[in-house]
Amino acid sequence: MKIVAVLYPGGPSAAQTPELLGCAENALGLREWLENAGHELVALTDTGDGLDSHLPTADALIATPFWPAYITRERIRQAPNLKLLLTAGVGSDHFDLAAAAERNITVAEITGSNVVSVAEHAVMQILTLVRNYIPAYQEVLNGGWDIGKVAARSHDLENKRVGIVGFGRIGQRIAARLKPFDVQTRYFDYRRLPLSDEILLAARYQALQPLIAESDIVSINIPLTPATQGMFNRQLLNNMKKRRLPSKHRPRQHSRHPRPNGSPRIRPPSRLRRRRLVSPARAPRPPLAANAQPRNDPPRIGNHPRSPTPLRRRNPPMPNRLPNRNPPRPRLHHSRRRPHHQPQLQPSLPTTPQHAGAHIHTPRAHV
Amino acid sequence: MKIVAVLYPGGPSAAQTPELLGCAENALGLREWLENAGHELVALTDTGDGLDSHLPTADALIATPFWPAYITRERIRQAPNLKLLLTAGVGSDHFDLAAAAERNITVAEITGSNVVSVAEHAVMQILTLVRNYIPAYQEVLNGGWDIGKVAARSHDLENKRVGIVGFGRIGQRIAARLKPFDVQTRYFDYRRLPLSDEILLAARYQALQPLIAESDIVSINIPLTPATQGMFNRQLLNNMKKRRLPSKHRPRQHSRHPRPNGSPRIRPPSRLRRRRLVSPARAPRPPLAANAQPRNDPPRIGNHPRSPTPLRRRNPPMPNRLPNRNPPRPRLHHSRRRPHHQPQLQPSLPTTPQHAGAHIHTPRAHV
Repeated sequence: MKIVAVLYPGGPSAAQTPELLGCAENALGLREWLENAGHELVALTDTGDGLDSHLPTADALIATPFWPAYITRERIRQAPNLKLLLTAGVGSDHFDLAAAAERNITVAEITGSNVVSVAEHAVMQILTLVRNYIPAYQEVLNGGWDIGKVAARSHDLENKRVGIVGFGRIGQRIAARLKPFDVQTRYFDYRRLPLSDEILLAARYQALQPLIAESDIVSINIPLTPATQGMFNRQLLNNMKKRRLPSKHRPRQHSRHPRPNGSPRIRPPSRLRRRRLVSPARAPRPPLAANAQPRNDPPRIGNHPRSPTPLRRRNPPMPNRLPNRNPPRPRLHHSRRRPHHQPQLQPSLPTTPQHAGAHIHTPRAHV
Repeated sequence: MKIVAVLYPGGPSAAQTPELLGCAENALGLREWLENAGHELVALTDTGDGLDSHLPTADALIATPFWPAYITRERIRQAPNLKLLLTAGVGSDHFDLAAAAERNITVAEITGSNVVSVAEHAVMQILTLVRNYIPAYQEVLNGGWDIGKVAARSHDLENKRVGIVGFGRIGQRIAARLKPFDVQTRYFDYRRLPLSDEILLAARYQALQPLIAESDIVSINIPLTPATQGMFNRQLLNNMKKRRLPSKHRPRQHSRHPRPNGSPRIRPPSRLRRRRLVSPARAPRPPLAANAQPRNDPPRIGNHPRSPTPLRRRNPPMPNRLPNRNPPRPRLHHSRRRPHHQPQLQPSLPTTPQHAGAHIHTPRAHV
């Protein structure tokens, strides 16, 4: 069997860091095992012609979403032996699922393999943004010590309201990690968690629009599908909280101190600046998924041809419900759906399901 | 009464952000209240001559450790009316405590006012360092996409061993925030917490040397005193863990897969690079406390003249016990000591004791 893996170039790090399995040089750590079993493994970095030359003989194809090889209908046509399209990670929107389904090609990814990494990354980014870390770091690197400039945009995360849109494996892990920061967590998803899980994660359900309007921080953890693409449009972003942050920096009224007789009552300054952490969108931009496309790559085509939503819709209606995570889609013959009532995370269990094995999975963005 | 506050210059942010109370322009939000009560408040940024000109008439003096006005014995001599030296925050090592005690001047700070901020900052820095965030951010800003270079130094925090040296208000809050990241937390302090607190914080006690040798991450949260200055010397840093990190990037042996008959057993690569996250110290450097001194400022003098430890000792003995948090020190007449057996943090209570009021406090570094 010939397995073709399109992976990122590790460069000098590949040899220095053998743990760096995802690069083409280290070939996911599979070379010895596959070749000992009599298979052929081709690991390459070229997502263009280099890949095309192997298509006619490839039995299985492995790719990743952060060094994407877009497997279009045309490329699937050029690969008559193809039986498996495998994402080394999570996210299969670089595969044309409809074309794969028509040919009865298995599409698989390693569901859950990166949920801890993404949750840690999200908490890190929340902290760095709220605390204004990188501008402060740059200030010091540049030899400055302008405390006012840095502190004016620096806040504690404590007591802030965090809205998590999409409360699956990643969203729940973010909530679990934020809980001891004493934040007020709200979440929105197409289904509500059992109360016991909400209590464990200290997260309350809230509809999308009030969540957006009332949160100091919004974390988006939903799959990229035609139905969710452009969901966070100008209208929704403009609806974000504009009031100043509730903060320990708020001037106190010293009401506990006795006032001298006849002295005027002290009021907080009236010219409190209204601001938001995230600036509203100014002009329509191509969606992030398009930005991730490498140059000179064939254009990505729609994954959900039966979906009524066009891929680029200028002014999509503001959603007040998340689309179902399992929208109508081309049927994958090997698909094993998870029943809806089964919680995706048992918060009382250790959260280490990494590399738990490959699961046939619905298309998901690399979030 | 004349109160002189030496605070950082807020610049344009002072007017735009009235919540920025700590700058000289906003004078800690105290001006209206103090002046209505008939007091005089002078807020200035000049830690040199500008301050000196007010010393002869000052009754109280407010300063901060991050824009430090060093109140030396000579300056105390020039202030015959001085009754109070107040830190707007935590950390009083910019005051000559011995000289203040001889004059019966109260030294006070707002104990606990910044513990949440510091704990959040420490967790943020742990995440950014372990995940290699700033180099990755710079890589993308520079238009690069060298995944290998960035990923080779990027790790998940999960399953790492975190050693917290100094387990007071800040250290315990760091442990509480790290707990859901599924780390293995060890702590070292001069006293051990009750078992119930250890269980709540998922932290185990460990002596300093094994903690340093076995931790992937070390967070130092101890006050700066002559006894702790230079404690993390070359010898201790060289003792830090050199083994590669336990990581999900470790190559798997695929032992669960059946081996074809006669095929060699697959072993992990033998040339695994030994490395550490923190480079060992190369040459003695002045302590951080000296680096924080502004230029052209009078030299800081020892705060603990009765302490036998000289301020700069080239090769201090490696400590295996933290010095008691309350070392022999000049007696402050107004000092209210916290009894030793009282836990500093009740983990089951809400952790929001910010601005709970001024406490007379032992000298502590701004950690």
